[in-house]
Amino acid sequence: MIDQTLLPGKLLPLRIKSVRQLIEAIKTLRVRGAPALGAAGGYGIALAASLSPATNAPELMDELETAAAMIKGSRPTAINLSWGVDRALRAAALQETAEDIREAALREAEEIAQEDIRINKQLGKNGARLLDDGDSVLTHCNAGRLACVGWGTALGVIRSAVAAGKQIHVYSCETRPLHQGSRLTCWELSQDGIPVTLLCDSMSGSLMRKGKIDKVIVGADRITRDAAFNKIGTYSHAVLAKHHKIPFYVAAPLSTFDRLHGEDEIVIEERSPEEVTTLGAARLAPQGIEVYNPAFDATPLELVTGLITEKGVFRPPLMPPI
Amino acid sequence: MIDQTLLPGKLLPLRIKSVRQLIEAIKTLRVRGAPALGAAGGYGIALAASLSPATNAPELMDELETAAAMIKGSRPTAINLSWGVDRALRAAALQETAEDIREAALREAEEIAQEDIRINKQLGKNGARLLDDGDSVLTHCNAGRLACVGWGTALGVIRSAVAAGKQIHVYSCETRPLHQGSRLTCWELSQDGIPVTLLCDSMSGSLMRKGKIDKVIVGADRITRDAAFNKIGTYSHAVLAKHHKIPFYVAAPLSTFDRLHGEDEIVIEERSPEEVTTLGAARLAPQGIEVYNPAFDATPLELVTGLITEKGVFRPPLMPPI
Repeated sequence: MIDQTLLPGKLLPLRIKSVRQLIEAIKTLRVRGAPALGAAGGYGIALAASLSPATNAPELMDELETAAAMIKGSRPTAINLSWGVDRALRAAALQETAEDIREAALREAEEIAQEDIRINKQLGKNGARLLDDGDSVLTHCNAGRLACVGWGTALGVIRSAVAAGKQIHVYSCETRPLHQGSRLTCWELSQDGIPVTLLCDSMSGSLMRKGKIDKVIVGADRITRDAAFNKIGTYSHAVLAKHHKIPFYVAAPLSTFDRLHGEDEIVIEERSPEEVTTLGAARLAPQGIEVYNPAFDATPLELVTGLITEKGVFRPPLMPPI
Repeated sequence: MIDQTLLPGKLLPLRIKSVRQLIEAIKTLRVRGAPALGAAGGYGIALAASLSPATNAPELMDELETAAAMIKGSRPTAINLSWGVDRALRAAALQETAEDIREAALREAEEIAQEDIRINKQLGKNGARLLDDGDSVLTHCNAGRLACVGWGTALGVIRSAVAAGKQIHVYSCETRPLHQGSRLTCWELSQDGIPVTLLCDSMSGSLMRKGKIDKVIVGADRITRDAAFNKIGTYSHAVLAKHHKIPFYVAAPLSTFDRLHGEDEIVIEERSPEEVTTLGAARLAPQGIEVYNPAFDATPLELVTGLITEKGVFRPPLMPPI
């Protein structure tokens, strides 16, 4: 995988050699983004299977279940991680020998990864119809190629619109505290030659009021029956979009949907205060200050104009078919 | 003055020895905050008068007018700077000799500075009545002691409420890109033992939705007949407060009011891209990226529940008497 913490300075591959290392990479956001985490989850199970010395199927499945729980626990709010882990685990559980388990887990992980690009391209095509030539689109965090195996969800929609010959200008919110917008989205779009303007998260309202934003498109880490969980800050943009009567879209594959739960049942990961109080060597706040630093927020689906998926665009309360 | 760019790491005085140095200090935000800029403007004229070799009144007044234009141009959106400069200039213009001009300019600058604390305490007392014991108050940027000569405007209201025996918890938005919230507001309040929680600007909506915010209070850099200009991001908090039915107050002395102009006539200062793309040695975005970085935004007065001034609290469209 690409170590996303080093961008935009360095584009370096990261070779994961153990489940422990994978969990570290997930927790520190070296790998991040819902669909990318889905693939990482699948490959995590394949890796655990390949490294295990177990010689019989029940013993190996026991080990994989332990690895699965550890991997899923590393980012509990993001549903795709669990989804990818469970998919590889289910494929493994159908087998009768340890060798077949190893093969099946790897095959399933590769299938998840290959599927992801196909799904994103279909999702992108469905969403691209919503964008008009000349549109300016605001996005938050990174729901692009880096967040997926390829193409992207929110940025996939933009890529598909550009591929269809439309001129699209992207406004990328920097996404404090970890700057996935400025570091990753701006980098990705610059690489593709798609025009992009960077702003601080607090500036979206000002831009909307000036009439500079035609649409907002973001990704999601989990969509329950009542809310879209995405990077902290998404909810504020959604309220601002509503106030300014700007369409607000969430682009996500079906694997991000969690129909079994409501918003209240989902625990939002709280991250370390240092993410907000320091940056590199710089200290941005006094020592010991109390910090509110949730990784995600929940946007009620009433604020969402459309859910862009590989099965089409659905206007809540309509949801894609299972 | 205090060099505010060094906080919270270092509390160091900065001695200003020339108008050129003052302008550099204003542009780089070593001195910032509407009322503090008012005093800095007054002292700037006193300094220009004191440094001038001019021996007759007309020659000295010519020099002061040149200095005045330069100082005012260093932060055009902030009205208090012009107000302080003009006040010292008017006091000087009434004199007949160079010596009297020098004395009058200094006297007026000192009067502005002393008045500021008195005014803030009165404003604080008027605003404190709006806060209930146990309230959690969100603020943005720094409208505290550091932004004034003492006490503060938005934070002055909170200080007055605390002095009156009320328990107040402050939620301080970090205020990208220059972190006046995390660096200055958190520092000031910690020094005073007032409980404060730091958050990223994009998190205010999430906190409001959870019912954690009772009131919002911010300062202002200029209040025209239709809008409150304040640090970029203020407008987003105002829309979010309205959506969540949370009172949104602007605390500012009469010297911040500009009844002659409407929002459309005010130019908002656009600052350098590097404020957003770099932080110390860290590069947060790819080289050469286009950046939107206005210093302020305008919040229409319809979104303001009350203007807290030294003459009382006014609910727009009501305005304080001139």
